[in-house]
Order: sequence, then structure tokens, then C-alpha cells
Amino acid sequence: MPTLTITAPSATYPVIIEDFLHNDRAFITAKSKALVVSNPKIAGLYLHKILPKIRAQEVFVCIVPDGEEHKNMQSIEQILQCAFANRLDRKSLMIALGGGVISDMVGFASGIFEREISYVSIPTTLLAQVDASVGGKCGINNAYGKNLVGLFHQPSAVYIDKEFLRTLPAREIRAGLAEVVKVLVCFDKLGFEALESSQDDMLDPSVLLPFIQKSIAIKARVVEQDERESGIRAALNYGHTFAHIIEMQTHYKRFLHGQAVAIGMTMANDLALRLGLLQETQAKRIERVLRRLGLDEAYPISDIEAFYQAFFLDKKSHNNTLCFVLPKGIGDFTLRDDIPKDQILATLAHFSLESMRI
Amino acid sequence: MPTLTITAPSATYPVIIEDFLHNDRAFITAKSKALVVSNPKIAGLYLHKILPKIRAQEVFVCIVPDGEEHKNMQSIEQILQCAFANRLDRKSLMIALGGGVISDMVGFASGIFEREISYVSIPTTLLAQVDASVGGKCGINNAYGKNLVGLFHQPSAVYIDKEFLRTLPAREIRAGLAEVVKVLVCFDKLGFEALESSQDDMLDPSVLLPFIQKSIAIKARVVEQDERESGIRAALNYGHTFAHIIEMQTHYKRFLHGQAVAIGMTMANDLALRLGLLQETQAKRIERVLRRLGLDEAYPISDIEAFYQAFFLDKKSHNNTLCFVLPKGIGDFTLRDDIPKDQILATLAHFSLESMRI
Repeated sequence: MPTLTITAPSATYPVIIEDFLHNDRAFITAKSKALVVSNPKIAGLYLHKILPKIRAQEVFVCIVPDGEEHKNMQSIEQILQCAFANRLDRKSLMIALGGGVISDMVGFASGIFEREISYVSIPTTLLAQVDASVGGKCGINNAYGKNLVGLFHQPSAVYIDKEFLRTLPAREIRAGLAEVVKVLVCFDKLGFEALESSQDDMLDPSVLLPFIQKSIAIKARVVEQDERESGIRAALNYGHTFAHIIEMQTHYKRFLHGQAVAIGMTMANDLALRLGLLQETQAKRIERVLRRLGLDEAYPISDIEAFYQAFFLDKKSHNNTLCFVLPKGIGDFTLRDDIPKDQILATLAHFSLESMRI
Repeated sequence: MPTLTITAPSATYPVIIEDFLHNDRAFITAKSKALVVSNPKIAGLYLHKILPKIRAQEVFVCIVPDGEEHKNMQSIEQILQCAFANRLDRKSLMIALGGGVISDMVGFASGIFEREISYVSIPTTLLAQVDASVGGKCGINNAYGKNLVGLFHQPSAVYIDKEFLRTLPAREIRAGLAEVVKVLVCFDKLGFEALESSQDDMLDPSVLLPFIQKSIAIKARVVEQDERESGIRAALNYGHTFAHIIEMQTHYKRFLHGQAVAIGMTMANDLALRLGLLQETQAKRIERVLRRLGLDEAYPISDIEAFYQAFFLDKKSHNNTLCFVLPKGIGDFTLRDDIPKDQILATLAHFSLESMRI
């Protein structure tokens, strides 16, 4: 059972990739009390399997509403309220059981509860397994955009069990695969080619497992080098600059995060094509893989200028400078903050409502 | 002009003790925008002097209501709202202009704004100058107690100007002196004796200055050794375990924090006497100093058992174990988590409404 160790500057912790649910000897141990945070659906599916595996003085459960639109301060207050009401102390442990929304919020809530207590993450979606649960970025959305309020708080352990994927809707698996494509395009040419040529059913958890491992291993390497995202970690935002605007404009409801990222990668590829960073054939190959994975949703931009202005609200923009992560061929990337507005507008126009009508 | 350098594990920063307000060549420089956070009173008194000293792309001002009862999530949301509405970016700077309430909240808000931006602190009360502004503890209160939600976030600089103390009500100077007494009793016998034998007017800023410097220097040494309060830093909580309950029971309204700390130190001394850690004569000397500084308010405990139970809500209590910081003579201290309940109750009874009536 492989265990990856993440050695970030602020903490070292294991990512345990194994059959956690069906392993009678696998336990999560808290030094004092434990608070499991989950959403109604995941709690109904898995709480009866997880609770007996927690060894703590007392175990409490907090259920927050599901969905990106509830990743807000109100849910954080709900988690904190539950922790205080049940007198968790500084040796207590929070346990995130759910997707990226849950792990982002539990990382944040545990990071500010009595100035930080520990948390472990049990990601139940593919997206959370390959991306959100590793790396310590936590936070919530607000009216101005995604993940604008938060902090860096590394978990003390992450448990990855492919078993959770068996109950995951296909749409969510596809969404998670977008993040797999993202890291492969930026960091791993051979991995991308393996995905490209695979004839297997990508919705099958056993087929997915090696790609999960590969993605986590890449992310671990990136986080180790650049925990606070001053350099290389920015590559993990490939597609995200566009995706954040798409998600905001659709109120986090129309697309899953991964679906928006897939659209965003297509937009970034278009920009990379214009700048000569990517070749037409390479862009087509990425597009083909996304299509085969069912990640070919469209988002016709209705107001190009409004979309462009929204970039400046993103927390990565600084001094009216936009920074884009663009693929440099397949398996490499570059960060560009010098792209002229007309080039960006050209890409946005390419994906506009008008050009799609034609 | 003395500058103390704080070298905490997570950050190194200067505490600049000088005539900042009247120094034409002293400026605060932000790499991008700056947001000054203050309260109505301090803003009215000092904003016209501070604003011309800020060099930034743009400067914004956010005024939050004054007082410990507003040190809550609502005020944090107000600060964040102002920062997002004015499009602060990750290179922007928050500036705390006010007492401990302001610096605690600005440290917290800047710590979670886009996963951390920098802040500088300009403490305008004696209490904030000698205690709150240095060390990076940030946070807010909630229904369960003081400072229960927060994080560690060191400022990038602290500016101490005794000029602010000239407009500070005597009651607030006295409250600040409680924290001076606290560090001297725990760490500095000679400093305590200097305070004890001084014939000068302790409300005079020039008389206070060497004691401010001394207190910051001690706190700096403590924070350097133990930023996260796993050991020695706990000594800075001398008097605070009692004070937090007193403040909570009086809804943060009847006493200033420092006044409550002074009462708390007297209670801790009583406990230390019972345990043979402090001699009667030493306790009397501390009491005499507090009285001369006008820190002899009384808080008759009306319900001993309720007061005792409230200890267990404090974030320092763990697994139903209470930990008290107690003076060991003058200039030394000890942490005790093994005190029998009856001893604690005896101290509480000594300060009870009933015993005070007699």
C-alpha cells in the first residue's frame, strides 16, 4: 500500500493510498476529541464505515450543506460553533470527509480554531483526491470570487481510498479527470501519452488509481518546492484563471469546478496557440483527450469586456498585471504576465456567444 | 532611536521605538495599495498625521467600531469587504492604527485575505504597545470566550511612538501598566524593583518609555524562543486565565483588559501563596505596586462553581486539565497543571461576593 510523504516547509505528512474503508486495522487516532465534518450525502453513504475507525476520547459530527455555493463564512461559523459547543481543545482533531469543498473548509476552520488545531482529510471525490486534499490551500468563496479568504494549513494526514469513487456520479469523475489532465499537460509528457492512448474505461476506479497516484506525486513535488505559490506552484492554476470567472459568472452552479477548469484549459490553449507556445496539433491532442473524458462543455462568453475586467478581481492579479499559466508544448508550461490585452480579447472573442453562433 | 528586532521562527521584523509622528523622514511604504484600519476616535485624532506618511499606490481607510465587544467576525468581514471592494492585491499592505483590538483584528484579516498579505502595526494604547502589537497572536472573541478564533501572523513592522499616550485616558494607561507589571513579575526582578521604587508619575509618557522598551524586549525574547506558545510564552498569560473569565462574565464592558489582568494577577498570587510558591511579603509588594498604579479594582465572584466551570472553556485548558501561570517569588514563574480543585475553589472563595461582604 503506497504512502507518499509530502515534505512541505511548514509540515511533513503522509498521503496514504490504500483500501482504508475495508482495512480492519486502519484507524485514525486523535489525541483528544474528534470532529468529523461532512455533507448530508457523503455522511449518509460513509459515516457508518468511518466512525468505527476513529479512536478518540469523544467523536462529534458536523454536517454542512453540500456545494460550492455553501463554501462560505456561514459554513465556517457552523463548523466552529459545533467545535466550541462540544468543547474541542487544542489537541483535538478535525476530520474532513467529503470533496474539495469540505477539505477546504475544514482546513480553514481548523486553522483558525484556537489559532490552529490539526485536521486529516478523507477525500471522497476524484477531484479532492488528486488536487484539493494535498497542498494545504484552504479557504472559502465570497461575493468577489473563489477562495479569496483562507490560509495555508497542511493536513496531518490524507487517506485516499478508490472505494469512494464507486458511488461517485460519472460527471464528478470526469470533473476530477480535468485536474489529472492539468498536471499531466504541465509536468508529465509520458503520463499524458499514457492517458491519451489508454483504451480502458476511465470511470473505473481501478483504472484511475495509477493516474491518481501519478497526480498526487506530481503535486507533492510541486508543493515541496513552492508551498506558498511564489513560483512553480502557480502552474497548478493552468486553466484556472479562466475557470474562476466562468464559475463566478454561473454562480458556481452550472459547472463542477473540474468542468470549468477543462473549459479554462481550452481557453488557455487558444492563448498559447496565438503566442506560439503551443502547436495546433498539440492543442488538438489535449482537446481530444478532454472530449474523450466527457470534458467538452462549452461556455459561450456573452460579454467579452466584462469577462476581461473580472480577471482583475482574481487574487493572482497584481497591479493590474494579469498572469497566465500557459502550456509550452505538452509536459511543460510557462508563466506569462506580459500578454497584450488584444491577444487576450482575441481568445475571449473566439469563445464568445457570437463566434459560437456562427 | 532604538529599534528592536524580533526574530520569530516564522518572520523577522523590527519594532521601531521613535518619534514617528513628528519625524518628517519616517514613512511606511507599501508595494501596492494600503488599507488603514482604525476606530472612530483614533482616526479623528491621528489620521491626518498618519495618512501623509504612507507611501502607496492608493490609500484606503476602514473604520471599525471601537471596543472589545466588536472584536468579532462581523468586524473582520467589514475589513475584508473594504479590502475586496477596493481591490487590494497580494502585495498590498494593511495598517493597524489603534489599540489591541485593532491590531488583533488587522493581523487576522490580513492573515486570511487572499491567504495572507502583510500588515504593520501602529499601536496607540500602552497595552497594545507593550503587549498586543508584538508576537503575532491575532484573533477575535465569540460567545464562548476571548481570542478563540484566530491565527499567528507576525506584522512586518511595529511603530511605537509615546506621543500617542498623551491623548490616552489615564484609565487606559493604567490598564497598559498591568501588562508591564505582568512581564516584570515573571521575568525581571530588577525591573520590578525599579517600578516599585520609582517616585515618578507613571502616567507621564516619558517616564513610561523605558518600561515600554523593557517590556517589549522581554516579550521579544519570549516570542523568539516560543512563537507558538508550547512552553515559556505561556508565562505571558499570568493573570489571564482568571481575567478571561472576568471579562466574559462582565461582557467585556466593565473592565479594560488590563484592569481584568490586574485582578487576575491578584487571584493568581493568592493561589501561588496557598501553594507556597510566593511569600506573603512578595504578594503584598505586587499588590502595593498595582494599587499605586490605580489597578486595585475588585471583582467579587458571585458564583464560585460557575467561575470554576468557565475555566474549562478557555482554549488553554485541555482534557479537563487546567494550567495556571503562577509567580515563583518575583522575577520567576512556574506553570502548574496539577492544582487540586479545592485549592482553586479556596482562592475563588477568597474573592467571592460573600467573603468581600464580611
